[in-house]
Amino acid sequence: MATIKDVAREAGVSVGTVSKVINNIPVKPATKAMVENAIKKLNYEPDVYARGFKMNRTNSVAVILPTIWNPFFSELAYNIEKNLSSFGMKMILCNSEDNQSSELEYITMAKQNKVDGIIAITYSDIDKYVSTNIPIISIDRYFSDSITYVSSDNLTGGKLAAEELVKSGCKNIAYIGRGSKINNATRNRKKGFVGYCEENNISYKVCDSLGSSKEFDSILNNFLIDNFKNNIKIDGIFTITDEYARDVIKRLREFNIKVPDDVQIIGYDGSRSSAKDTIEISTIRQPIELIAKESVSSLIDLIDKKEVEKEIVLPVKFIKGYTTK
Amino acid sequence: MATIKDVAREAGVSVGTVSKVINNIPVKPATKAMVENAIKKLNYEPDVYARGFKMNRTNSVAVILPTIWNPFFSELAYNIEKNLSSFGMKMILCNSEDNQSSELEYITMAKQNKVDGIIAITYSDIDKYVSTNIPIISIDRYFSDSITYVSSDNLTGGKLAAEELVKSGCKNIAYIGRGSKINNATRNRKKGFVGYCEENNISYKVCDSLGSSKEFDSILNNFLIDNFKNNIKIDGIFTITDEYARDVIKRLREFNIKVPDDVQIIGYDGSRSSAKDTIEISTIRQPIELIAKESVSSLIDLIDKKEVEKEIVLPVKFIKGYTTK
Repeated sequence: MATIKDVAREAGVSVGTVSKVINNIPVKPATKAMVENAIKKLNYEPDVYARGFKMNRTNSVAVILPTIWNPFFSELAYNIEKNLSSFGMKMILCNSEDNQSSELEYITMAKQNKVDGIIAITYSDIDKYVSTNIPIISIDRYFSDSITYVSSDNLTGGKLAAEELVKSGCKNIAYIGRGSKINNATRNRKKGFVGYCEENNISYKVCDSLGSSKEFDSILNNFLIDNFKNNIKIDGIFTITDEYARDVIKRLREFNIKVPDDVQIIGYDGSRSSAKDTIEISTIRQPIELIAKESVSSLIDLIDKKEVEKEIVLPVKFIKGYTTK
Repeated sequence: MATIKDVAREAGVSVGTVSKVINNIPVKPATKAMVENAIKKLNYEPDVYARGFKMNRTNSVAVILPTIWNPFFSELAYNIEKNLSSFGMKMILCNSEDNQSSELEYITMAKQNKVDGIIAITYSDIDKYVSTNIPIISIDRYFSDSITYVSSDNLTGGKLAAEELVKSGCKNIAYIGRGSKINNATRNRKKGFVGYCEENNISYKVCDSLGSSKEFDSILNNFLIDNFKNNIKIDGIFTITDEYARDVIKRLREFNIKVPDDVQIIGYDGSRSSAKDTIEISTIRQPIELIAKESVSSLIDLIDKKEVEKEIVLPVKFIKGYTTK
């Protein structure tokens, strides 16, 4: 394969001049033409990796997710990659599985300029490692006033879920979802739900916990026994995600509770497992495409040292599925 | 941040000596200790990107999939990334959406050593660009005798599907699936199904096409009208993927055909949309974890210039879901 030296020899110029042409640094038009002809003739492909090394750009972005094996995260990653690709950038994908050390590894990569920036959804406690020195966009997670985060309008989403349940005739509604100890924007889903109920004097219950998923499993089980086993005390449920909604539906089947006849359920996310899939559960849909687009364009602004809004909150909407009347 | 020069100064040795220690090239034990102490003291992090540049290794692998927004591909990518990570390698993920030019872009990256290798699931015609010079593992696609491909045992899978339908009482069975013009290992699913039917004198029909998905859409529609609208002529169906199975079930609902009472259905893949998900459709399950593991370990052998088997075919099994009796 032709090297930059071959091109220089062919064009009768120095390697430095070829490098200038490749990197769009002005040279005499005649010189430029000679170099371009030599590049064409020799079918020379400038090594972008080497250029990235020299210019301190890799044109790659690390995307850290709990796991790509999940409809919401795979739809999000699909859209992030499409957006990055339109800017000529590559996506390095990391399944953190909430493992702090693998998240820190990618933060170190960004500090060492091995990636240009990071888009992260993380639930672990990495605050002290994240600084404004590295371009980072956080999805659904508030770090500090100096780090941009992008999220759906969780507060309105929680309100909307309560409102829709009430509109469909529910009188006794509940919120179900495991919380997170860190300052996660998804907390606002519960806040919006509870706020709506209190403002409108709606009777509500809350089933949540900041503990492990194992702990929450038994809390949820007891909650469902209390409210459904002997008689039905709840007629509407809002779950923190669609995944929780599916889980609750499965558990209620064991008590012979019918959805939506006995209890109506609204989830949150509205992701589909593929583009061909349809939304089956009534849900508050996150604008996944828009979250991806805003995350990528804000990250590129950060990499280019431009000013970026610190909080980007994007609108949600209710989508009716089979789980509400 | 400390540089390699700072370390050299601190240790009282040359930059070249520090580089040797970092790259595990033998130096005098006392010198090694001095360098390691200096690295520790200055909290120096060797720049792996620069090392990759020099050693012609990037420790990254491009994974090309039609789309990550799909349960099968997201489960596969999840497992590929886990395996790569255990070797200290990163996954650059590309949604090709069967777009040849984006596939070629990654092949060019591999040729230019911007990635160490490629794992690809591709249905487009890129044969002439793929050479043995670049480490590449193809999943489900045969290119040439010199390129390693990894697939599930599609032939046995097709046979097994026919056998299971017959064992559950089906007398008139059908194969449904759009084929691909390229030499795709998934063709063997139909071959195995048809082979079993012919050997055992089972009455069977085939609904397939090598045309576009739009063309196949109307072919499938006509096939279902012919065989289900007025009276039911088929009591068992094997679809080329679970996604097709779900699609057929939806379409049959419109004719009021009940699964599995009126017709039993077996899909292929057995992927779940997340680790918490359960398999609902009866299916021939691909060993997704094993496919990921074998693809990664074979690719690393290729990168290391070791001999690799050219055809790696991995066992499948039948999983009973609600769509068979």
